Amino acid sequence: MKVNGKPMRSIWVEADGAVGVIDQTVLPHEFRTVRLTSRDEAAQAISSMLVRGAPLIGAVAAYGMVLALRADASDEALETAYRTLLATRPTAINLKWALDEMMAAVRNRPRGERLAVAEKRAAEICDEDVAINRAIGEHGLRLIEAIAARKKPGERVNVLTHCNAGWLATVDWGTATAPIYLAHDKGIALHVYADETRPRNQGASLTAWELGRHGVPHTVIPDNTGGHLMQHGLVDMVIVGTDRVTARGDVCNKIGTYLKALAAKDNDVPFYVALPSPTIDFTVGDGVAEIPIEQRAADEVAVMSGRTSDGRIEAVRIVPDGSPVANYAFDVTPARLVTGLITERGILPATREGLAAAFPERAGRDPEKWEPVFRRDHAPSEKKRATDDSISTNPAQAERR
Amino acid sequence: MKVNGKPMRSIWVEADGAVGVIDQTVLPHEFRTVRLTSRDEAAQAISSMLVRGAPLIGAVAAYGMVLALRADASDEALETAYRTLLATRPTAINLKWALDEMMAAVRNRPRGERLAVAEKRAAEICDEDVAINRAIGEHGLRLIEAIAARKKPGERVNVLTHCNAGWLATVDWGTATAPIYLAHDKGIALHVYADETRPRNQGASLTAWELGRHGVPHTVIPDNTGGHLMQHGLVDMVIVGTDRVTARGDVCNKIGTYLKALAAKDNDVPFYVALPSPTIDFTVGDGVAEIPIEQRAADEVAVMSGRTSDGRIEAVRIVPDGSPVANYAFDVTPARLVTGLITERGILPATREGLAAAFPERAGRDPEKWEPVFRRDHAPSEKKRATDDSISTNPAQAERR
Repeated sequence: MKVNGKPMRSIWVEADGAVGVIDQTVLPHEFRTVRLTSRDEAAQAISSMLVRGAPLIGAVAAYGMVLALRADASDEALETAYRTLLATRPTAINLKWALDEMMAAVRNRPRGERLAVAEKRAAEICDEDVAINRAIGEHGLRLIEAIAARKKPGERVNVLTHCNAGWLATVDWGTATAPIYLAHDKGIALHVYADETRPRNQGASLTAWELGRHGVPHTVIPDNTGGHLMQHGLVDMVIVGTDRVTARGDVCNKIGTYLKALAAKDNDVPFYVALPSPTIDFTVGDGVAEIPIEQRAADEVAVMSGRTSDGRIEAVRIVPDGSPVANYAFDVTPARLVTGLITERGILPATREGLAAAFPERAGRDPEKWEPVFRRDHAPSEKKRATDDSISTNPAQAERR
Repeated sequence: MKVNGKPMRSIWVEADGAVGVIDQTVLPHEFRTVRLTSRDEAAQAISSMLVRGAPLIGAVAAYGMVLALRADASDEALETAYRTLLATRPTAINLKWALDEMMAAVRNRPRGERLAVAEKRAAEICDEDVAINRAIGEHGLRLIEAIAARKKPGERVNVLTHCNAGWLATVDWGTATAPIYLAHDKGIALHVYADETRPRNQGASLTAWELGRHGVPHTVIPDNTGGHLMQHGLVDMVIVGTDRVTARGDVCNKIGTYLKALAAKDNDVPFYVALPSPTIDFTVGDGVAEIPIEQRAADEVAVMSGRTSDGRIEAVRIVPDGSPVANYAFDVTPARLVTGLITERGILPATREGLAAAFPERAGRDPEKWEPVFRRDHAPSEKKRATDDSISTNPAQAERR
């Protein structure tokens, strides 16, 4: 997407082979690019969250392998690079996938060929991400076009989004934002309400920044505002991203997504979720009961970073000393509240049948994992009870922090 | 309520006649009391938001009249004090009510008696507020006791609240917090989830502070979190305050209240609204269509104040330069989502019949205003459409700021 009129991706290769990325820790207050020239600089960029977002982390890790091979193409160097990069964000599935892809591509090649092969595979990983997001965008664009066709002259299509499922989290286009950028670039009059997205403020700091730099009209709103806007007909559709979609279409995403889905349902506003298909987890059925929700550090809620009037970045505490804080990172939106799932293979109903029909090779290929999901659904009451009990211990844990 | 073990109200008279208040602008980071010794200091305390909350503003204004009369008991001084204090927050209904009460009490008295009469009436205004809130608390306590009776040993009653309808906003007890303080003081094991409450953070800064100082177990959560907690059975009831309740029970309150009411409904969690009866506006029926929602300054969203690690209070910007911000102050929760209204006359259904039966003297006394409400309801579609059109111009206004 564009930054101040110039097209760019979130990761690129410079003329001398260095890898360029955007320092996302200083957004939205400063636009700073960083050159990564070694395996360790790539690893540091991931672990310090200079870059974030599952697809972008995978791409940076892939190029970290390239940088490692440029210095030393031995088997030992390859293994060390794999382990070093994998350790940066141990729970990031996409990171491991990208590293495994790189290893598979270069492992059995002679040393002299490894760098070229690695460069080619890393570039492909980036291009594949762009192609998937572009396809999501094309499918979602049709939804926006249909709404635009019903508007009177001078009226805009109003889209609400939560968190940042934008191009900064991917290599380009983003997922939830791909239909938005395509529609805007096509000249459709469109306006985005960007939820601030507490506690980490990804909407206010990242989504607003990237929409603004590309020239997409937008308004930042507190997370509390979306329901009021929908009650008054000010939102035509909601598009959000997701971290995991279950086999039956439940959507795990940034905390607060569920509240927006409820408001959309209550006001007949369509609620769409944009996702690349690897996000679908066919081993899980009931998302609310089965997906464990990560609790993160209290200071993400209690302390807020921003820019002072004289331009310094400063962190300020906003919660009284001694008040415990709970910080649940995600929630689950039940499939019944989801109008459709925008994937690279088209817009699917958020149902087990819809997902299985679009991805038969994944839904069907592992009966060991696939069958128990059906069995679990046949005995929801026992399952539900057991899970609720285990989860009800969480607030106490949060308070002990 | 207590502050560090010592009972106090939000306003008191000192031995020398000065009026004491808490400086709410430096909470939660500093506890500082301020002595008001003149009409102008009282006016300044209101206009600078040193004190806030409708009942407390009324009480400070009443004592502002007392301080004015102590300096000069003439008719001219009385008129000047009335106008000066009224101008501090022109839209605060409670402020005008308290000033009118004071004028009615002293106007026809000889100068020599005015101060004593004013002191008596101001003290009564405070005591009446305390009595109303205490009555709200007693009614709400029964709800909490019923939940506590169903708990297993060692389990707590979990109450979620939004914004600050606490004792800091009133003279004592608060409205939404009155049942909570009574239950806690009675020894019921109880825990409060306090919504951070963006944009002005009244939950994180005021509700958390007052609960903490009184010793009530609580946890601050981002506004996005409540839905997830309710999905997992971690909230037993919601209690919020309100700025205005319509004749049919729609509830206008801090933005985001509607989202919590939707989540409560979706998870069978009871959703209660605590209010002193003057909050009921029998001239309005359909709250969503008829109540104009104030839009406030963008900087309330874009800039956040807090305490730096070295103890300074600093404001930091959290939204990119050039990104427009919308700041709707309130939303309306439709009566269908409200389990009950906790008033000083008991717990009422959020229906026209329920409110009229409990307050026949107000519901019936002005047929000019009361009848059209029924007529409007009989033609909801026309009404709805007209209002949506007028409201849909708002985002453009917000962007122009």
